Amino acid sequence: MNQEKLREFEPVFFPKSIAVVGASPNPLKFGNRYLEALISTGFKGKLYPVHPSDGQISGLKAYPTVRDIPDPVDYVIVSIPAQHVLGVLDDCAANGVKVVQFFTAGFSETGEEEGRLLERELVKKANEGGFRIIGPNCIGVYSPANLMSYGPMPMLGKVGTVGFISQSGGHAGRIIDIGLRRGIYFSKAVSFGNGPDLDSVDYLEYFAADPDTEIIGAYLEGMRQGRRFFKLAKEISKTKPMIIWKGGKTEAGAEAAASHTGSLAISDTIWSAVLKQAGVVRVDSLEELADTILTFQHFPPFLGQNVAIIAGLAGGGGGESVSSTDACASVGLNVPPFTNETRSKLKAILPPAGSILRNPLDMGGVGGDLDILDRTMEIVVADPRIDLIIVNENMDELVMWVTKERLEIMNDIFVRFRGIKPLVVVSPPGLPSGDCAALEKRLSDAQVTVYPSLDRAAKAIANMNWYYRFHRGNL
Amino acid sequence: MNQEKLREFEPVFFPKSIAVVGASPNPLKFGNRYLEALISTGFKGKLYPVHPSDGQISGLKAYPTVRDIPDPVDYVIVSIPAQHVLGVLDDCAANGVKVVQFFTAGFSETGEEEGRLLERELVKKANEGGFRIIGPNCIGVYSPANLMSYGPMPMLGKVGTVGFISQSGGHAGRIIDIGLRRGIYFSKAVSFGNGPDLDSVDYLEYFAADPDTEIIGAYLEGMRQGRRFFKLAKEISKTKPMIIWKGGKTEAGAEAAASHTGSLAISDTIWSAVLKQAGVVRVDSLEELADTILTFQHFPPFLGQNVAIIAGLAGGGGGESVSSTDACASVGLNVPPFTNETRSKLKAILPPAGSILRNPLDMGGVGGDLDILDRTMEIVVADPRIDLIIVNENMDELVMWVTKERLEIMNDIFVRFRGIKPLVVVSPPGLPSGDCAALEKRLSDAQVTVYPSLDRAAKAIANMNWYYRFHRGNL
Repeated sequence: MNQEKLREFEPVFFPKSIAVVGASPNPLKFGNRYLEALISTGFKGKLYPVHPSDGQISGLKAYPTVRDIPDPVDYVIVSIPAQHVLGVLDDCAANGVKVVQFFTAGFSETGEEEGRLLERELVKKANEGGFRIIGPNCIGVYSPANLMSYGPMPMLGKVGTVGFISQSGGHAGRIIDIGLRRGIYFSKAVSFGNGPDLDSVDYLEYFAADPDTEIIGAYLEGMRQGRRFFKLAKEISKTKPMIIWKGGKTEAGAEAAASHTGSLAISDTIWSAVLKQAGVVRVDSLEELADTILTFQHFPPFLGQNVAIIAGLAGGGGGESVSSTDACASVGLNVPPFTNETRSKLKAILPPAGSILRNPLDMGGVGGDLDILDRTMEIVVADPRIDLIIVNENMDELVMWVTKERLEIMNDIFVRFRGIKPLVVVSPPGLPSGDCAALEKRLSDAQVTVYPSLDRAAKAIANMNWYYRFHRGNL
Repeated sequence: MNQEKLREFEPVFFPKSIAVVGASPNPLKFGNRYLEALISTGFKGKLYPVHPSDGQISGLKAYPTVRDIPDPVDYVIVSIPAQHVLGVLDDCAANGVKVVQFFTAGFSETGEEEGRLLERELVKKANEGGFRIIGPNCIGVYSPANLMSYGPMPMLGKVGTVGFISQSGGHAGRIIDIGLRRGIYFSKAVSFGNGPDLDSVDYLEYFAADPDTEIIGAYLEGMRQGRRFFKLAKEISKTKPMIIWKGGKTEAGAEAAASHTGSLAISDTIWSAVLKQAGVVRVDSLEELADTILTFQHFPPFLGQNVAIIAGLAGGGGGESVSSTDACASVGLNVPPFTNETRSKLKAILPPAGSILRNPLDMGGVGGDLDILDRTMEIVVADPRIDLIIVNENMDELVMWVTKERLEIMNDIFVRFRGIKPLVVVSPPGLPSGDCAALEKRLSDAQVTVYPSLDRAAKAIANMNWYYRFHRGNL
C-alpha cells in the first residue's frame, strides 16, 4: 500500500518534465513567474513554456499547446483564465500528462453555479484522461529534493523532514519563507486550493507513507471527508507529529473561508475535540505554527515539563525573569527552584548583587563573560530537576556590549550544552538582519531553536510536550 | 498642585548636572557605561565622574567624592557595591544634591534582613539630607528632551508624548529600544526598582501633571500603596490613556517577582478587576504593550469597531483573509460585508478570478499596480460601514515582485488615505532590516501604525477601542 501511494504521487512531487500553460514573455504574468522560478531553482527536468505565439520564452522553446509538445509531460501548470481550461485538459489527455496543477481560479470558490459546474468538468476530464488535478485555485507543489520552487517563489530551502499541506497558497508561501529564514526544512509542501480531486486526505495519506516526511503540518479551512481525515490523523499522529492550523475558527472567519475555498464550516468545538482526541497539535496562528514545527524538528521525544530560565545576560534580567516565568506557567510548564547544590554553586561564581539564583536565574549582566557563562551553563544543565533550558539571550541587546565574534563564542557554548540537555534561545528582533540571520542559522543548524519572544517559545514547547505526553501515555 | 509636582520632579527628569559615582576607566563597568552614554547622547549639563583615583575619566575631570565637587549637583548616579553607599549619601547631603539614583542592588530585593535595613537607612538619609531616591536596584531615568540617555543605553529617540513607569530596568530598556525602531516617542521613562522613596504612585502623579505626557504606560510587579494607586489611575485614565503590563500574574511568576523587587503579590483577579473598573488597559506581554502604546500614539479617539481587511496585494490572499478575520473576530472587532455599492465598484476594477470582494478584500495579486491600488483604497475608504482599514501589506513578499521605489509609492498611497480614515499596515519580518526600518519609519511618521502580524494589530486596536468606549460611555 505504501509503495503504491509513493508511486501514485511520484509525478506530483518528483515530475521529470513540466509544462507551463500561460507562460508569457511578460515578466509580471504569473505564468512567466512560475517558469522563471523553476529555472532559477535549477529544476533538472525538461521545461516547456506553452504560449500561442510559439517562439522562445525565457530562453526556452515554446509550444502553442501541450498537444504539440513532442515528448510526454509529467506535470502541467495552468495559469490562464478559467474559461479556456477545458481545451487545455483535452490536450493534456492527448499528451499523456500525469498531473495538472491549476493556478487558475474562478471555480467553486466563487460560490456561483457556473464555477461549480466548471470544476466538476475538470474532475471528469481528469478521470477520463487518466491524470490527477492539484487545485484549482492554488499555488501548487514545493519539492526541494526535486529542485522545484514553490510556484512562483524563486527560492529553494534545504531538504528536510517536514511535510506541509495547505488550503491556502499564501499561508504555505509564508511558512516556506519563514522556514528559509529560521531553518524549517521541508520534504515537500503543497497548496491544493479547492481540492475537488486530490484533497487533504490524499496528501495526508501520501505523507503517512512517505519515508522522507517525519513531521506533518497543515493549514486547513474545511474538508469534504472529515470522518476519513480524522481517522487517518489519529493513526498517523502516533508516529508522525501532526500540527494543524485551522482557518475560519470564528463565525466571521468561517464566512470568509466559504468565499476562499468554498469550504463548508465544521464547528470549531468539533474540530477542537476531534483533533485533541486524535493527538493532533492544534495551533492558532502562523507564528505558532512555525514555532511549533521548528520545535518538533529540533527535539527528540520530550516528556519533561520542568524548565530552567536564564535571564539578565546583559543586565536588567529581573523583569525578564518574572515575565518569562509567567509565560511558562501560563501554558503549563513548571519553573521549579534549583536544588540547593545548584544554588550554592551559582552563588560562588555570580555577582552578589543584581543576580537571582532561584530559577529563573538572573545573571546580573555578566553573561558576556565567557568563563562565567560556561560555568553557569554547566551548573544549570547538571541540575537534576531541570528538563530543558530556556536562555533569554537577547542578542539585540548583547551586541551593544560585546563584539559579534564574542556573541558567536557565546552561541558555541549554548550549542555545546545543547548536546547534553534540551536548550532553546530567545532573542527578539532588532539585530541588523544579516547578522541576525547568520547567528540564528548557526544555532538552528545545531538544533538550538531560536524564538523571538519567551511567550512564543513557551507555547511551542508546551505544544510539543503535550504531544509526547499524549502519545506516550502520560496524559 | 500641578506646578508644585512639576517643580518637585524638575531635578528627576531635567537635572542640569549629573555625577556618576563608580565611573571607571574600565569600559565594561556599568559606571563607565552610564557616563559614556550621557556623553554620547550629548547631555548638555555638567558631568562629574566620581572615582577615588582623581584624574580623568572619559576625558572629564574626576573627583574622589561627591563632596569634593566644587559646584552643586542635581542628580547623582550610584554604581558601586551596596556596602559603600551610605558614605556616598553623606557626601550627597553635603553637596546639596537633589536626586540620587541607585543602579546598585543588594537591598530589600535580596529578601534578607541586612538588605532591608540598608534600604531603610537610604531613605532615612535621603529625608535628612533633603534629596529624593530613584531605585535602588534600577536603571533610572530616560529623558530625551534633556538629552539624557536611558542609563547605560547610548541612544536617544525623538521626544514624544508617552510617559513610561517601570519596575523592571530591562523591560523599560526593551520598550525604549522597540520605540527607537517602531517610532514610539517618549516624553520620559523611569525604571524605579524597589522604590522605597519615589514609588510608582509618585511617578504616576507626576505624569498626570506633566503637560508633555499624554499616554502613560507601565510595567509593574506589585505596589505598596495599592488603594492610592488605583484611585489615582481611575482619575488619570479619564484624560490620559493608561496601559499597564502586570508581571507576576501566575503564582510562579509572583514568586519570581518577590525575588526581583521584593513585591508583595496582589492576586491577579483583583488586579484585573480593579484595572478594568478604572478604565485602564491591561496588556499581557511586552509585544502587546508596545503595539498598544503605538496605537494610542497614532490615533485620535476611536470608537468604531468595524474594520475592513485588505489582503492579497501580492497574491495568495485567501488564507490571509480568513485568518485575518479570525484574528479580528476573536478580539471583538467586526468585519462587516461592504455595501453593494462598494462591491460593484470593486468588481469593475479587480480581476474576476482570485479576488474576493466581500470584506476581507482579496486583491488577487494586483496590489502592486499603483493605479488599481489607489482606486481600490478610494472605494474601501469611502464605504460608510467601515471605521478603520487594516492593510495586509506584507512588504517582505511584495519586494519579490516590485522595486523598493514602487513600495514607497504604495506606502504614499496608504499615507494619503490615512488622512481620510484610520488605517494601519501589517507587515511581517523578513525584509532586510535597513530597508524595513526606513519603510516602516516613513509610515509611522505619517501615523500609519505598522504591526508584524494581524493578530497583534487586532489586539492593539481592540485594546484602544475598549478604552475609548469605556471612557466615552459606550460600555
